[in-house]
Amino acid sequence: MMINFKIDYADGAHPKILEKLLTTNADQTPGYGEDDYCQQAQAAIQSYLGSTPCEIHFLVGGTQTNLTFISHALKPYEAVLSAQTGHIMTNEVGSIEATGHKIIPLPATDGKVTLHALHTFFKQPQTIHMVKPKLLYLSNPTELGTLYSKQELEELSKFCRQHHLYLYVDGARLGSGLVAPSNTLTLEDYARLTDAFYIGGTKNGALFGEALVLIHPELAQDFRLNMKQKGALLAKGRLLGLQFLTLFQDALFFEIAHLANQRANELRQGLLHLGISFWTSTQTNQLFPILPNHLLPVLSERFSFTIWEPYDEHHSVVRLVTSYATSKDDIIQFLETLNTLYKKDALN
Amino acid sequence: MMINFKIDYADGAHPKILEKLLTTNADQTPGYGEDDYCQQAQAAIQSYLGSTPCEIHFLVGGTQTNLTFISHALKPYEAVLSAQTGHIMTNEVGSIEATGHKIIPLPATDGKVTLHALHTFFKQPQTIHMVKPKLLYLSNPTELGTLYSKQELEELSKFCRQHHLYLYVDGARLGSGLVAPSNTLTLEDYARLTDAFYIGGTKNGALFGEALVLIHPELAQDFRLNMKQKGALLAKGRLLGLQFLTLFQDALFFEIAHLANQRANELRQGLLHLGISFWTSTQTNQLFPILPNHLLPVLSERFSFTIWEPYDEHHSVVRLVTSYATSKDDIIQFLETLNTLYKKDALN
Amino acid sequence: MMINFKIDYADGAHPKILEKLLTTNADQTPGYGEDDYCQQAQAAIQSYLGSTPCEIHFLVGGTQTNLTFISHALKPYEAVLSAQTGHIMTNEVGSIEATGHKIIPLPATDGKVTLHALHTFFKQPQTIHMVKPKLLYLSNPTELGTLYSKQELEELSKFCRQHHLYLYVDGARLGSGLVAPSNTLTLEDYARLTDAFYIGGTKNGALFGEALVLIHPELAQDFRLNMKQKGALLAKGRLLGLQFLTLFQDALFFEIAHLANQRANELRQGLLHLGISFWTSTQTNQLFPILPNHLLPVLSERFSFTIWEPYDEHHSVVRLVTSYATSKDDIIQFLETLNTLYKKDALN
Amino acid sequence: MMINFKIDYADGAHPKILEKLLTTNADQTPGYGEDDYCQQAQAAIQSYLGSTPCEIHFLVGGTQTNLTFISHALKPYEAVLSAQTGHIMTNEVGSIEATGHKIIPLPATDGKVTLHALHTFFKQPQTIHMVKPKLLYLSNPTELGTLYSKQELEELSKFCRQHHLYLYVDGARLGSGLVAPSNTLTLEDYARLTDAFYIGGTKNGALFGEALVLIHPELAQDFRLNMKQKGALLAKGRLLGLQFLTLFQDALFFEIAHLANQRANELRQGLLHLGISFWTSTQTNQLFPILPNHLLPVLSERFSFTIWEPYDEHHSVVRLVTSYATSKDDIIQFLETLNTLYKKDALN
Repeated sequence: MMINFKIDYADGAHPKILEKLLTTNADQTPGYGEDDYCQQAQAAIQSYLGSTPCEIHFLVGGTQTNLTFISHALKPYEAVLSAQTGHIMTNEVGSIEATGHKIIPLPATDGKVTLHALHTFFKQPQTIHMVKPKLLYLSNPTELGTLYSKQELEELSKFCRQHHLYLYVDGARLGSGLVAPSNTLTLEDYARLTDAFYIGGTKNGALFGEALVLIHPELAQDFRLNMKQKGALLAKGRLLGLQFLTLFQDALFFEIAHLANQRANELRQGLLHLGISFWTSTQTNQLFPILPNHLLPVLSERFSFTIWEPYDEHHSVVRLVTSYATSKDDIIQFLETLNTLYKKDALN
Repeated sequence: MMINFKIDYADGAHPKILEKLLTTNADQTPGYGEDDYCQQAQAAIQSYLGSTPCEIHFLVGGTQTNLTFISHALKPYEAVLSAQTGHIMTNEVGSIEATGHKIIPLPATDGKVTLHALHTFFKQPQTIHMVKPKLLYLSNPTELGTLYSKQELEELSKFCRQHHLYLYVDGARLGSGLVAPSNTLTLEDYARLTDAFYIGGTKNGALFGEALVLIHPELAQDFRLNMKQKGALLAKGRLLGLQFLTLFQDALFFEIAHLANQRANELRQGLLHLGISFWTSTQTNQLFPILPNHLLPVLSERFSFTIWEPYDEHHSVVRLVTSYATSKDDIIQFLETLNTLYKKDALN
Repeated sequence: MMINFKIDYADGAHPKILEKLLTTNADQTPGYGEDDYCQQAQAAIQSYLGSTPCEIHFLVGGTQTNLTFISHALKPYEAVLSAQTGHIMTNEVGSIEATGHKIIPLPATDGKVTLHALHTFFKQPQTIHMVKPKLLYLSNPTELGTLYSKQELEELSKFCRQHHLYLYVDGARLGSGLVAPSNTLTLEDYARLTDAFYIGGTKNGALFGEALVLIHPELAQDFRLNMKQKGALLAKGRLLGLQFLTLFQDALFFEIAHLANQRANELRQGLLHLGISFWTSTQTNQLFPILPNHLLPVLSERFSFTIWEPYDEHHSVVRLVTSYATSKDDIIQFLETLNTLYKKDALN
Repeated sequence: MMINFKIDYADGAHPKILEKLLTTNADQTPGYGEDDYCQQAQAAIQSYLGSTPCEIHFLVGGTQTNLTFISHALKPYEAVLSAQTGHIMTNEVGSIEATGHKIIPLPATDGKVTLHALHTFFKQPQTIHMVKPKLLYLSNPTELGTLYSKQELEELSKFCRQHHLYLYVDGARLGSGLVAPSNTLTLEDYARLTDAFYIGGTKNGALFGEALVLIHPELAQDFRLNMKQKGALLAKGRLLGLQFLTLFQDALFFEIAHLANQRANELRQGLLHLGISFWTSTQTNQLFPILPNHLLPVLSERFSFTIWEPYDEHHSVVRLVTSYATSKDDIIQFLETLNTLYKKDALN
């Protein structure tokens, strides 16, 4: 059987989540997230957010969360600013544009939007022929596994407030970011510095689910109407409440993320040991080693992974992803296989 | 605790579904419905559809399925025809319009679109100032619990083919319809007579999920791109495959629906026995008794249900819904409470 | 040659408008309505609006004005209330829905929305499954040539303010309404009672053009960005300024409307004299006589008009429209032809 | 008074166009482009298109034409490819995205899309997470005044057909391109090589108006319904017919374009004579000289023009546009003023 380094959502869910669904299965609750479990889950999350009053909504997936939130925040002629490598820019089949809004791509450094790129963009005179930028979209960790530091997020937040931009963070892998060794940001910081962000469950041990935190009061009004309209209001909303309650009442969320990072770290160390270099320097659960093209077909026979982009004529950037469900043995097998292939190479 | 007659999705899921999720939880599969479970579930459903080649896609909820399918089927200036009581018309926050398309309401009889209403509509001359009707949306069972007969569906299908309309059936409660005593339609008939329809899981024992069957070849092209764009491509798509596999491999789907109808029938018999009359005559899991307004507050203390609309000055149409999870005891308690209230009334 | 009673925009433009274009043709002005002529035209119109501060924008046509304004005013989940006979409901190819918004049809009396219909609608409990009504769309004169009185508009305005609805009046034929004998409304009243309305030029002697008056301050923000986005910002915007300047600096607008109504009145008197009855009672430039079906083909040989809808088995409602360009002789010929046909009928 | 080098639509219209409107003003015609003048204008244009059967529609402006056409051509998940400097990408307030479609920016050379850029783009594997490119948008002349050669257009056309892309050319300044000294393309070539293109009137002497030529049969179906929906069906459609008839029956269109190019050439020669260099090399009516920043405020006192973008610390790229209405004297004054400023500079 294939060993998965392609996605961090290849299994069902963390066993504690399934257990919770089992023990509550016969309960009868109202639909659409109006149940007690959702309320408890919201309270559990709010306890991490400090004193900032927030509204928390549970949605099923990341693309859905992005499109429902962004379409809610913008007027027809308003646009999103995003790194050109942003997930909404490249990997969501134009879902934001399908709600009527342009995404303006900004040059990115290691997947990150920089203050410099924003300053350069805002130097252009705004005319009545141009969309009005109104929202800055970041992912943290980024699509390249890198992280914004607390200082970077504070600077971007300040810039946004000065320029009347909403700041929104896509946290599909927020867990992995929050427990990364170099991380300096807390959930409380996100609540303080952004106007909205989401905490990803799908890629952190849930069956599915993202918790969207709305901070700016303008953004909360009638949000559930927009959720329903976009097909994002789950009938059995309790399923989301139950999962996030399980994840946040005993910090399971962080434990799961920590496991993923730990496996990634073991893999990184092993690859470095083999003399392999990396495209971006990451401490989260995504690694981007540079591998020789001629080894990829052999590796693909036993391991699934993503060929990200060409590096040079003979090498490619490859993405390897770990999760709490990755085993130590998966890591060992990958490293041993690669080691064997390298040795063979050396003999030829 | 409240006894639920308000929704048919108040519990978790049928135990066999949870069991299936548990036993497969550790399996590692590809994402986005490209796994074996989805394929097996598609085969299991296809085995009910006869020789018509279909494409089957799994989506999370009904509103999502309707908007993803309809936006896929129509050009910008094309519109949907629907009963004025149709779910997309009244209860989905304008989700179809949000994808750019008008819904033209047709007068409905017992929640059903009639050939007569269609003929009347098509008598109007079409001008370049009017949307072009291109798709007929039906629900079966309807929002009022009524059923189209085989003859009715055949006539509507013929009309649609003559007028170049796609015929689409919203089957949120298709299970309850298929096993209703008076039902004359099979899944094979749906595949033969419609261009697309969906088989509802959410309201028939699943945690969530709808199986969309695309029959007309024009409608299948690139459908998954539109799913992804609308936020309707579940990352852990296997969850849908596993559920529909469980529902269809041993006919559990029909068994669940049968239980819901059986409870509804017991409730109907009891209400008739109390001399209560009904707004629509249904054999599915939705009942619409006409109850005196002054009893509703008392009933609401122990039972949840929907006050559908005023009937006359002193009475309201009430909707009672059952599911496989409704117990015999729930029925008995409701009938006894009502009986007691009626007796008290008689004494005053 | 055919004599036109079908449309009130069958000619080029009032000669004074063409003359203005000729005399200013060589002037070089900035584009997009940033020229002096537009400013002068805005001032000329503002002088009729009293002390209410307004923003005035010039657009090319009515459908364009409706869709640009309405898409500007609403959030994604908000909807328009309109008479079921409203122009945006029936005759603009779903242009409002194409911008993402549902139109909720209200039953209409003589083409008019009534307080009663609004009260009935708002009695329904609002749920998270329903669009949120946010804007009331009226046409005055209506599509059936009828007029709202001052009292009616005041009541509707009050209702809208109480229910947080914007009130918007489509004034495609506002001129004809303003000078109708029974009219009790002034432009100042419109500015006082509505949140936005437009003054139609196309159907009142202009080559093209509608002047949109934005009153509610929320509605004015960034409006020109939305105009540009919808393709509604004319490059040579001065053409609109020049036309509305000509129409409003010496009250030509009212004179043109008066001529149209006068011709309509002559036609009405003549038809009444022939014993013909009317479907709606109008004092504007649209008449809806009820004519025998068997005469329509003969009449159609010399006159163009619209067959509106069947009246009974043997009669149809016909729409006859006049404009300032309709001649007395056109009226006489129509009446004589009809008289001759009636006499022939009487002989058979 | 300011001398205009900012836009090529600063005047009213070519006198012959106004004359035509005057002489036909009293004619009564059907609305919405169903009149004889439109038919004659279509025939006049078709006579330039060779044997390819086309459908020709008249719209009011360029943004409107682009959005109406592109929204007609694409399914929800399909996208446009455009030079990153394309007009729809930068200067139309996200009008294409507002109809639901992503524009994928391609790196541009002198404002032109290259085969190389297309090949590079299509090397990326297409996944279900990415929009499907379906239409290549070009402008000719480009936004930078440059021209595609016949060979380039043939190669791009071939590429598009191989990759199932529609090829669409925005011809806002097509006239200037067609009569440029280096031009090798005829209208017949456009009809042979593209799937649709438009012939710009607004920037070539008309009051307003663009003639959209639909060549691929799939694109023509129901196009007028989409026009009406987008507010792009002019009530007095004859105004467009009359203008294009005037432009094409005696080749006035080409004469007007020739005048604009001639003035641009005089201006170019004068600037070269002053030793000024250019950002792009153009033979059409747009020039992009590189001017010293410190002279721009002084120049701006008498001349209007566009500061396009910074060139280096001390210079800017400036855009100068000419039209048939630019006089020889305008050119002389600009050159003399600049000469004087340069001389002063030399003295300091």
